[in-house]
Amino acid sequence: MAGSSWGTLLRMTTWGESHGSGLGAVVDGCPAGLPLCEEDIQRYLDRRRPGQSRYTTKRQEADRAEILSGVFEGKTTGTPISILVRNTDQPGHADYTFDQKYGFRDYRGGGRSSGRETIGRVAAGAVAAKLLQELGVEVIAYARSIGPVEADMGRFDREEIGRNPVCMPDAEAAAKAEAYLQEQMERQDSAGGVVECVIRGLPAGVGEPVFEKLDACLGHALLSIGAVKGVEIGDGFAAAASTGSVNNDMFYIKDGHGAKRTNHAGGILGGISDGSDVVIRAAFKPTPSIARPQRTITRQGEETEAVIRGRHDPIIVPRAVVVVEAMAAFTAADLLLQGLSSRLDSVRR
Amino acid sequence: MAGSSWGTLLRMTTWGESHGSGLGAVVDGCPAGLPLCEEDIQRYLDRRRPGQSRYTTKRQEADRAEILSGVFEGKTTGTPISILVRNTDQPGHADYTFDQKYGFRDYRGGGRSSGRETIGRVAAGAVAAKLLQELGVEVIAYARSIGPVEADMGRFDREEIGRNPVCMPDAEAAAKAEAYLQEQMERQDSAGGVVECVIRGLPAGVGEPVFEKLDACLGHALLSIGAVKGVEIGDGFAAAASTGSVNNDMFYIKDGHGAKRTNHAGGILGGISDGSDVVIRAAFKPTPSIARPQRTITRQGEETEAVIRGRHDPIIVPRAVVVVEAMAAFTAADLLLQGLSSRLDSVRR
Amino acid sequence: MAGSSWGTLLRMTTWGESHGSGLGAVVDGCPAGLPLCEEDIQRYLDRRRPGQSRYTTKRQEADRAEILSGVFEGKTTGTPISILVRNTDQPGHADYTFDQKYGFRDYRGGGRSSGRETIGRVAAGAVAAKLLQELGVEVIAYARSIGPVEADMGRFDREEIGRNPVCMPDAEAAAKAEAYLQEQMERQDSAGGVVECVIRGLPAGVGEPVFEKLDACLGHALLSIGAVKGVEIGDGFAAAASTGSVNNDMFYIKDGHGAKRTNHAGGILGGISDGSDVVIRAAFKPTPSIARPQRTITRQGEETEAVIRGRHDPIIVPRAVVVVEAMAAFTAADLLLQGLSSRLDSVRR
Amino acid sequence: MAGSSWGTLLRMTTWGESHGSGLGAVVDGCPAGLPLCEEDIQRYLDRRRPGQSRYTTKRQEADRAEILSGVFEGKTTGTPISILVRNTDQPGHADYTFDQKYGFRDYRGGGRSSGRETIGRVAAGAVAAKLLQELGVEVIAYARSIGPVEADMGRFDREEIGRNPVCMPDAEAAAKAEAYLQEQMERQDSAGGVVECVIRGLPAGVGEPVFEKLDACLGHALLSIGAVKGVEIGDGFAAAASTGSVNNDMFYIKDGHGAKRTNHAGGILGGISDGSDVVIRAAFKPTPSIARPQRTITRQGEETEAVIRGRHDPIIVPRAVVVVEAMAAFTAADLLLQGLSSRLDSVRR
Repeated sequence: MAGSSWGTLLRMTTWGESHGSGLGAVVDGCPAGLPLCEEDIQRYLDRRRPGQSRYTTKRQEADRAEILSGVFEGKTTGTPISILVRNTDQPGHADYTFDQKYGFRDYRGGGRSSGRETIGRVAAGAVAAKLLQELGVEVIAYARSIGPVEADMGRFDREEIGRNPVCMPDAEAAAKAEAYLQEQMERQDSAGGVVECVIRGLPAGVGEPVFEKLDACLGHALLSIGAVKGVEIGDGFAAAASTGSVNNDMFYIKDGHGAKRTNHAGGILGGISDGSDVVIRAAFKPTPSIARPQRTITRQGEETEAVIRGRHDPIIVPRAVVVVEAMAAFTAADLLLQGLSSRLDSVRR
Repeated sequence: MAGSSWGTLLRMTTWGESHGSGLGAVVDGCPAGLPLCEEDIQRYLDRRRPGQSRYTTKRQEADRAEILSGVFEGKTTGTPISILVRNTDQPGHADYTFDQKYGFRDYRGGGRSSGRETIGRVAAGAVAAKLLQELGVEVIAYARSIGPVEADMGRFDREEIGRNPVCMPDAEAAAKAEAYLQEQMERQDSAGGVVECVIRGLPAGVGEPVFEKLDACLGHALLSIGAVKGVEIGDGFAAAASTGSVNNDMFYIKDGHGAKRTNHAGGILGGISDGSDVVIRAAFKPTPSIARPQRTITRQGEETEAVIRGRHDPIIVPRAVVVVEAMAAFTAADLLLQGLSSRLDSVRR
Repeated sequence: MAGSSWGTLLRMTTWGESHGSGLGAVVDGCPAGLPLCEEDIQRYLDRRRPGQSRYTTKRQEADRAEILSGVFEGKTTGTPISILVRNTDQPGHADYTFDQKYGFRDYRGGGRSSGRETIGRVAAGAVAAKLLQELGVEVIAYARSIGPVEADMGRFDREEIGRNPVCMPDAEAAAKAEAYLQEQMERQDSAGGVVECVIRGLPAGVGEPVFEKLDACLGHALLSIGAVKGVEIGDGFAAAASTGSVNNDMFYIKDGHGAKRTNHAGGILGGISDGSDVVIRAAFKPTPSIARPQRTITRQGEETEAVIRGRHDPIIVPRAVVVVEAMAAFTAADLLLQGLSSRLDSVRR
Repeated sequence: MAGSSWGTLLRMTTWGESHGSGLGAVVDGCPAGLPLCEEDIQRYLDRRRPGQSRYTTKRQEADRAEILSGVFEGKTTGTPISILVRNTDQPGHADYTFDQKYGFRDYRGGGRSSGRETIGRVAAGAVAAKLLQELGVEVIAYARSIGPVEADMGRFDREEIGRNPVCMPDAEAAAKAEAYLQEQMERQDSAGGVVECVIRGLPAGVGEPVFEKLDACLGHALLSIGAVKGVEIGDGFAAAASTGSVNNDMFYIKDGHGAKRTNHAGGILGGISDGSDVVIRAAFKPTPSIARPQRTITRQGEETEAVIRGRHDPIIVPRAVVVVEAMAAFTAADLLLQGLSSRLDSVRR
């Protein structure tokens, strides 16, 4: 539906481009009474800010979030929450024209495929994360792999995610990943990676059984992030090569409640959450903009060799971690709200 | 939105469950004037019919499609196309109750997670495929791998897909896959696999740049099929481990037009088709219902060992091939229609 | 969105035309656990059946509702409820061609503007009415006026609605209306009228404050019924000529609760129900198909005089009463479900 | 869907409240290439500005429109157009609390039912009007009546609409209306009225035949404006008292094309435009906020007499004229875009 909105009951509409005067999002359908302030959103935006490490561009972007509506005396009022981030480092027309001329990325809509387009998503995701937090649900994303370097989940350390510049939950892998990135930069090349996201505390029963399955909606949300070329739930593609006796999660009784010994399914069965951790991964391709000269064609249909000037990250994964988290949180929150009307006894109250 | 509809301008609403009296779909938004008959739909339904090989259940299902509305004298009228398939082999209440008792698949909504739910999707997809065909677009799906056995794309033979019972485009791999499946059946176990889908002839420019990206919508569509645990576009997860200089597709001039030497991107850049083949893959987990006894818990919270009786395919991939094709066709057609209003000069006519 | 669906969380998709093999509706989003049987739907369909009086066509239509899905052992399962009504009295191609040739009604989509299109609406509305009934909400429609004859609400008798052939709640007015209709029939002419609908027991707070106001959605629903040319809430157009001091409803305390001495607002303030009776009216134009010869033009652009052959009701209001009731019930139920996520404390439970 | 968006392909999301820091709208789905500048929007906003006459509040509101995105070098880019209007005359918390305390208008969402909520609608409508203008379609609204004073359409003068403070197209009626309003102000009372809107040049065929009929969507749009209690198309309620032979519009040949001698139908047949002028009317109730003391109840459930302090217009009709025009333009433009995919031959090009 016109493409710039996401969600059904909880709905974000994002807008803005890097060459305009600002970017933002309107979040509609957030329940009234949720404590929310600009700092809640700023904390998320700061996590996507470039300039925080040697692998992200050195621009000085402030990216200050301003809440224009929908919050009164520190609580949401139930009306649309409009969030504005002014562009302070607006590129000139030349940059824009350059972008239009060379079609490394297929182009439509003037700057919407830029990385800055994610500002609206992150701001909206921060609102959803706050709502989920009130309901005891937590969303955590991190880099699972950088190029060929994979984090060892046996060494998972949540605090480590925020400590290293590649957002990995394993310090040892992070060091290897940094060395790998250094190598790519020296070769004027770029790298990709995989972001993993875990949703903890989501009650069983979230997701609609046919087209609005929890995994289908999460997958859509993650695939809508630029540069994502694949999505997996639980064991994902590895499950395709496995067998039923190995891949089925066995249920048992733990402290009087049903539990699973394994989580091959990634917390989703038949498109609906089963109460265990939801685990989803997104594969990001290497940054296409590299300093190395590349063969391409001009708009006039002539072959040429182009060098992409300007500031380019050798990898977007560290900056994309919070975008994945934001999109996953928003999607889970929307489906959680949708589920409120699924049974007569929950409607009658 | 209530979960059983898919698409925006071209929209399917599917309904029905295996224990009811029928299943079907309503397709709304199909342009008037499209030649369409029941045979067009039947041909698709027949491809998902069980009993055609030793790897699919032996039930005698007719699954005859009846068009109830929306077609007059062989052409669509622009009104909703309602398609009905009667259940002839309706399971008794006992089967249903059994399903409800043991939660191997999380259960909600009485039978909608059954494989028969896909009948509506396939019928609706047949309509979309007919529409695409009129516009010069072709959608082809096949088993890319069965368990650990992968098709060699150097031996790709389109005719072969319909000749072997595992729907592989490579006869040699198909034979190996059959042997592998035989082995799993003897071990009372099951297998998974990967279905690949190629969209040929799709014009450049299909897809909306933010949330309704072509890959995001295709991914959503495929992840909404039961048992799909992952989706890839182009090189997918392999791209995450690659580098920019390798992964970027190089453009050159071929016969006066722009062309790509490679198609790592799978025909989609920035969420929008680039005119080359769109390539997408879906990973199917092994059938969870296996004859081998499995540990589980009863609804009363007691641990037990359960044997799933009844007819179960050792693999669903061969039957799922047409479902993937149907969902991909429907999604591509919907986005193609949405794109008609993207530029002022296309609106003004 | 493709036009044949109505509602957001509770959603009907209707299909079918008079010259096809059947008509029906798919109701998605109905909460699981609602007692529902075919008789619940049949009772509504019977109220729109022609042949029940001298003012409605004499065709012998059975219009038997069959529930194809979504109900198991007498209760809804939460999956789409598909309802089918076979056409038993299918007109020949000739009728259809005639319709296409003469454009008294602008024509698109082959028969969807026919009165039989309302079958799907009424069947879907019956489901919504059953849901509302469980929640203590009742929807009652009746003819408020027939041509120039208006019911005297001081003589309102609910039982009378079902007793007279014009569905008026006032026996005296009904007798006058019958005389008026008799006169129109003798003159080969037709009549219009106004249907009024009251929603009782709807809790305060239903309706969304901006575009999905309760009155806006009810108005849309009623204006989507063929032949409706106007809609009013409460005092409606009369309010436009009134003054604030007269039109404002005065609140007072009755038995410890807030109450209103008057209901000029028709139970809706700022687009949201205020807990009192919701009152809405729809104006139906006279049946355009009259036996009297009329000047028109052929598709070839020639002026001609046409006589519309066949069976035509001199008025559609009595048959439309249940359609208004159905659409109002469905719309109110959908908005009631949407409101479940409006406050944090209602989400957190 | 969360309530603050309107339209399907062309979609506005409005946000903001009178006590916040700004208001605005995001317009998604506007075709690329449309000439658009801030002045196009400002011209519309100025028409709803208070302080322009003695019948509208005396606040000094600048209401300057800023386009934040979606326009580049004077043309739309196809991306969301975000429009911001800062609140310069922000009421204090006290005003807000007062509003919350006394429930003359049912209240939800903190200020969204305020008249300023229409700023986003008008800004979005200005974009739609520009698009329609490019396609040769014109939308004109005016006050058809003020209280009991009705404009004589025989004296219709389009220029007059902008000349008198009540926006009537008939100078004589405008003078009478002014006298009537003066009288109400002296009595500390308020007045209502009817706004009529004409859409000229809309091609035949706009509107979807079932739920998204042109009249149903226009009606929804107008009923979503605060204070509207009724909507009519063409002859509206008068048609209900007429007969078929009188109410049917007679077609004839004029200059080789089909034409209608009358337009009782208001340019819409079966929910679809017939190529003649579309005529729709909205009834506005009298402003509920009057200086005269009124009986009401406090939130604590006690009866009281309240005087509404502050600035209140004795009538909102003159300010609402441009809101009606904006909503009608937006709705017509959206349906016009939706119709682009209605026939195979229009899709195939």
